[in-house]
Amino acid sequence: MTILGQQFIGAEAVKGANGEIFGIDAASGSKLTPGFGGATKADLERACALAEAAFEPYRALPPEERALFLEAIADNIQAIGEELIERCMAESGLPRPRLEGERARTMGQLRLFAGVLRDGGFLDARIDPALPERKPLPRPDLRLNNVPLGPVAVFGASNFPLAFSVAGGDTASALAAGCPVIVKAHSAHPGTSELVGRAVQKAVKDRGLPEGTFSLLYDSGREIGQGLVADPRIRAVGFTGSRAGGTALMKIAAARPMPIPVYAEMSSINPVLLFPGALKARGEAIGKGFIASLTLGAGQFCTNPGLIIAIEGEGLDAFVRGATEAIAAAPAAVMLTPGIHRAYCEGTGKLRGHAAVELVGQGTEGGELRGQAAFFATSAENFLAHHDLQDEVFGASSLLVRCRDADEVAKVIAALEGQLTVALHMEAEDHAAAAKLLPKLERLAGRILVNGFGTGVEVAHAMVHGGPYPSTSDGRSTSVGSLAIQRFLRPVCYQDLPGALLPPALQDGNPLGLWRRIDGKLGQD
Amino acid sequence: MTILGQQFIGAEAVKGANGEIFGIDAASGSKLTPGFGGATKADLERACALAEAAFEPYRALPPEERALFLEAIADNIQAIGEELIERCMAESGLPRPRLEGERARTMGQLRLFAGVLRDGGFLDARIDPALPERKPLPRPDLRLNNVPLGPVAVFGASNFPLAFSVAGGDTASALAAGCPVIVKAHSAHPGTSELVGRAVQKAVKDRGLPEGTFSLLYDSGREIGQGLVADPRIRAVGFTGSRAGGTALMKIAAARPMPIPVYAEMSSINPVLLFPGALKARGEAIGKGFIASLTLGAGQFCTNPGLIIAIEGEGLDAFVRGATEAIAAAPAAVMLTPGIHRAYCEGTGKLRGHAAVELVGQGTEGGELRGQAAFFATSAENFLAHHDLQDEVFGASSLLVRCRDADEVAKVIAALEGQLTVALHMEAEDHAAAAKLLPKLERLAGRILVNGFGTGVEVAHAMVHGGPYPSTSDGRSTSVGSLAIQRFLRPVCYQDLPGALLPPALQDGNPLGLWRRIDGKLGQD
Repeated sequence: MTILGQQFIGAEAVKGANGEIFGIDAASGSKLTPGFGGATKADLERACALAEAAFEPYRALPPEERALFLEAIADNIQAIGEELIERCMAESGLPRPRLEGERARTMGQLRLFAGVLRDGGFLDARIDPALPERKPLPRPDLRLNNVPLGPVAVFGASNFPLAFSVAGGDTASALAAGCPVIVKAHSAHPGTSELVGRAVQKAVKDRGLPEGTFSLLYDSGREIGQGLVADPRIRAVGFTGSRAGGTALMKIAAARPMPIPVYAEMSSINPVLLFPGALKARGEAIGKGFIASLTLGAGQFCTNPGLIIAIEGEGLDAFVRGATEAIAAAPAAVMLTPGIHRAYCEGTGKLRGHAAVELVGQGTEGGELRGQAAFFATSAENFLAHHDLQDEVFGASSLLVRCRDADEVAKVIAALEGQLTVALHMEAEDHAAAAKLLPKLERLAGRILVNGFGTGVEVAHAMVHGGPYPSTSDGRSTSVGSLAIQRFLRPVCYQDLPGALLPPALQDGNPLGLWRRIDGKLGQD
Repeated sequence: MTILGQQFIGAEAVKGANGEIFGIDAASGSKLTPGFGGATKADLERACALAEAAFEPYRALPPEERALFLEAIADNIQAIGEELIERCMAESGLPRPRLEGERARTMGQLRLFAGVLRDGGFLDARIDPALPERKPLPRPDLRLNNVPLGPVAVFGASNFPLAFSVAGGDTASALAAGCPVIVKAHSAHPGTSELVGRAVQKAVKDRGLPEGTFSLLYDSGREIGQGLVADPRIRAVGFTGSRAGGTALMKIAAARPMPIPVYAEMSSINPVLLFPGALKARGEAIGKGFIASLTLGAGQFCTNPGLIIAIEGEGLDAFVRGATEAIAAAPAAVMLTPGIHRAYCEGTGKLRGHAAVELVGQGTEGGELRGQAAFFATSAENFLAHHDLQDEVFGASSLLVRCRDADEVAKVIAALEGQLTVALHMEAEDHAAAAKLLPKLERLAGRILVNGFGTGVEVAHAMVHGGPYPSTSDGRSTSVGSLAIQRFLRPVCYQDLPGALLPPALQDGNPLGLWRRIDGKLGQD
């Protein structure tokens, strides 16, 4: 047994003295041992001081060294073995195959960023050579590359205890960028956090990195998380969670003497547009596929299909038939935490009692800690009249908006808040209608997908897991995929700096073998 | 005479009915005719509605069309001819050669962004092809490119009536990105603004673009500017001006139901570090060069050298001698506006009366509307004890911080706020000391330059005119150079979108001939 209730402050493993947190067995609600001590203000101070001290030496490492570090973390996570999966299953209520897949994804993310470091494109190296003879004024030698922002605070997410938690996407991309990371563990999975935290700490030690490169703190209240965002040494924040939580952190970050960027992935209902041709061709099958996506992982995905938009007719009737049949067979599923289950019951309860909403179908009965899937419907008119119908209900709940025609569909789309994804189900005959909507959809969401659902976010170079506010705090970014590293970088220009003092990315002879822009032209000089 | 006191709301040229603004002859303080009507709320509403209506058709244009539009603006500015220079000289008090140079720079910026559009790298096109056979799950086809944010509000800057005003860098980069622009003219140069505004309006018409692509409003108070930032159709803001002005806009933008990015370039004192070797070799010459940079354009540059940091000794004495001699010969210079002159007199007056500060040298006496150059000094100890000594005094005022040793230099640097530039004067023997400081300087500023001064910002691909807060509101960006276009873009991912519906940048066969990342690898497929 290697779960000791410890947090990691640089090279130390120490139990916090500020209250006690317990993991909860998601399926039974019973306490898991041991208890985890919450961080004190002194712990926070020490973690921040160590991160600040680590920043310069850590970011000065060659990209290859940081790549090897990320790979070492992945290897160490693998090496935890069965204990990690079992503890994570208990704390999250998620089934083994999902968590084995999530572990693979977590390691894959770390390795993806190792590749990003070796590629070097993230540095955006640019050189405008001096033009000493230019008239009326000579041009100096100008060179640009990206540098890391500084220590980053990462908040673990409840719904991805591995892939968006201690060594998840935010941590991997910040470490890749050259930023030390302080993680505030999510209190829903402290044991999982400790196991992964120890894997990261070991990689720091084995690779001989400065100890402050990584720390992991527990928070028995909100003081430590909020203090982390307010600390002047922290220069950016990664967060996945509720809109209330994300906007609270945005406010703290904006009120600092030096405001910092907050990358909060907050809430999204991920509209699904069913075009008439697709409904006609395979309405019932789409309905079944929809329920499979809706109920995956008890519906606890940021990209869960929470809103269906379609024009009434036989095709939609078939869709509803397929969905209703499928959802009736959907077993109530253990939710991540008692609190999330409570919020889900409140959210679906509100919809059940909503005058403008009818219940179309539901899964097998829920009960303590288990969420009952629910499928509701309303008219476009009602949807447009009730803004609260856009509120995310985190879990396997979705709302069908029945439209009379394409104009109503367009009105519903125009009324929507920013989203992570929008899914289109269509056949060739629907292409013209879809093409007309595409410019609106590009403004609405970070990812547009066809004949599928947003759940299952591929970790890749062309992925965007982000979108206009309020789906995220900053729609110019993605938290999944290789582009996520850009969140933690800023450009610096060097003018007439002697060659010996230039960063390797910008030196003559291109020692890193990068693609660089010379006078604006991309090449591998 | 083509100055009619008109603003431009889409295709209309109309005098505003909300109060009257007059250009002021900077040298004499007398009113220039005609008067300019301030925009009403109805004008603002109409400009925003037109910008929103223009957004979709404008951004859908092929990059080549937008490039031709930017070039047409440049041509039209050239075609205004002498009237533009004369009016701008009167309104700004800046001399002819400076404004002829600034006009060339303005046209150069527009043409640079035409080149950026033709290159297409700003789209960051990425394709991860489908892997239908992958186990355990197939990979969908994923494609990513950048899309424009939406209509952008640009605030003209007082100190660059051409290059950072109506058709300046913010406007050029936003239009290049595909964003319609509404400019709030700076009230210091309404006539210059009208002339340039008409040139842009004509280009919109001649190129057959949607009229809302560009509007220009005057504001007789603050209501229109603030209303612009608060309007839900505006999706980003470009601003160059004071810290008070910039932070006020940041607050409005953050308090919107949908917060938006504000790119405010605000205040910077641009530290100059004089290393011992350089002081020994050419202290006096550096002193003379410093005063030439300090007094250029009456010191009214964002990158004006407002702070000198050096170790005491003979070399520094020589520098001070050179600077003192040079500043004594510096003529008092007309400042941009009576208000800027007043603020300069207040700022230098405060330093003259500051117990911790001594006056080292000054230019010929100022007087009404003319600023007298001033060079002050203090000790490192005093500098560290008085945070107000970091306040920017906009104009030809600078402060020398005398340090006893390298440790004190490091302490002074550590105490500095974020800056646009930091300049290093050094010889080969100083390289080791400079190398030690470089990591701190990279955190401090957006541009590090050697043996020169920050004034004279090259418009290029490797330029960064930006820096950590409070020099700008968002240190992840630059407002000068080709990278400035990134401020107005966000990534969108298309998953399994039928080829016919894909944007051209992502279509098979690469019709735009772009460099694209295929499976993460850069190439010109």
